[in-house]
Amino acid sequence: MGLFAKDLNTMDDLFVHALRDIYYAENRFVKALPDMIEKASNPQLKQALRSHLGETETQVLRLQEVFRMHGAEVKGVDCPAFDGLIEEADDLADEVEDRKVLDAALIAAAQAVEHYEIARYGSLIAWAKELGRSDCASVLEKNLAEEKAADRRLTVLAESGVNTAAATV
Amino acid sequence: MGLFAKDLNTMDDLFVHALRDIYYAENRFVKALPDMIEKASNPQLKQALRSHLGETETQVLRLQEVFRMHGAEVKGVDCPAFDGLIEEADDLADEVEDRKVLDAALIAAAQAVEHYEIARYGSLIAWAKELGRSDCASVLEKNLAEEKAADRRLTVLAESGVNTAAATV
Repeated sequence: MGLFAKDLNTMDDLFVHALRDIYYAENRFVKALPDMIEKASNPQLKQALRSHLGETETQVLRLQEVFRMHGAEVKGVDCPAFDGLIEEADDLADEVEDRKVLDAALIAAAQAVEHYEIARYGSLIAWAKELGRSDCASVLEKNLAEEKAADRRLTVLAESGVNTAAATV
Repeated sequence: MGLFAKDLNTMDDLFVHALRDIYYAENRFVKALPDMIEKASNPQLKQALRSHLGETETQVLRLQEVFRMHGAEVKGVDCPAFDGLIEEADDLADEVEDRKVLDAALIAAAQAVEHYEIARYGSLIAWAKELGRSDCASVLEKNLAEEKAADRRLTVLAESGVNTAAATV
């Protein structure tokens, strides 16, 4: 979350900081996904990532809405953990000769990103409710539901054709 | 996962690499948890983290078993993403004056770690099955079940007393 403890004196501080963390993350994922889509070979995987790119763009807009609702400045904060996840996805370059192995690795990289986001939205929703901001929680819950659905779609792909093809390499 | 694409030519390479990634992660979490336990104030949170430290030590042994079953050298690989997650937990220092806010942040940090591990074990289990290593998958499933249970326990804490207390700050 790129936390700076000195800035976190109240639950409200924590909520806004985490909101800025996930805002940074979603924006970075929007920039990273086109490259992942290009690297993917399996048509279902390409489609799943493409569809999630559209969702992620909408999620960024929803986060801007939450900032406004809560009266906080719309901005991101650096997050070394999320940077690491994206760098991992970036590293899956054309050097991986077998396209099916690359697909399997791309799915794993995307699922690690999804799970990061699932954890963050879970915390944000709990904190929003505690702060009496059920309106913010409702908006954040839409993003969480989409992340969980994206993760489930990737699990189906990981457990089906993509890996079966790669295992024969 | 600290991937080096050139090393990943087969599904077996990918499986072993991810095994080394989660081995690094679990070992690093074993070293980080005592500090998190010390920083936590809420007795239930302290107990949940303490209990998970014991589980994590067992998970490291299970991973060593999987390495042996698969005939791969037991070792870890650097993982910048996981390092980022742990650094975040480390940053939650004594500078956070309110102990309840610190507890809420510690729960969030621990849940981000759990979700990283859940994603990794999910991929590893899918790949083990595709490689015909259902024996390895069975061992890995024990770790996955514990990570999911740990995450659920932390969610209960996040949604109950810990946050309620912090929100009054």
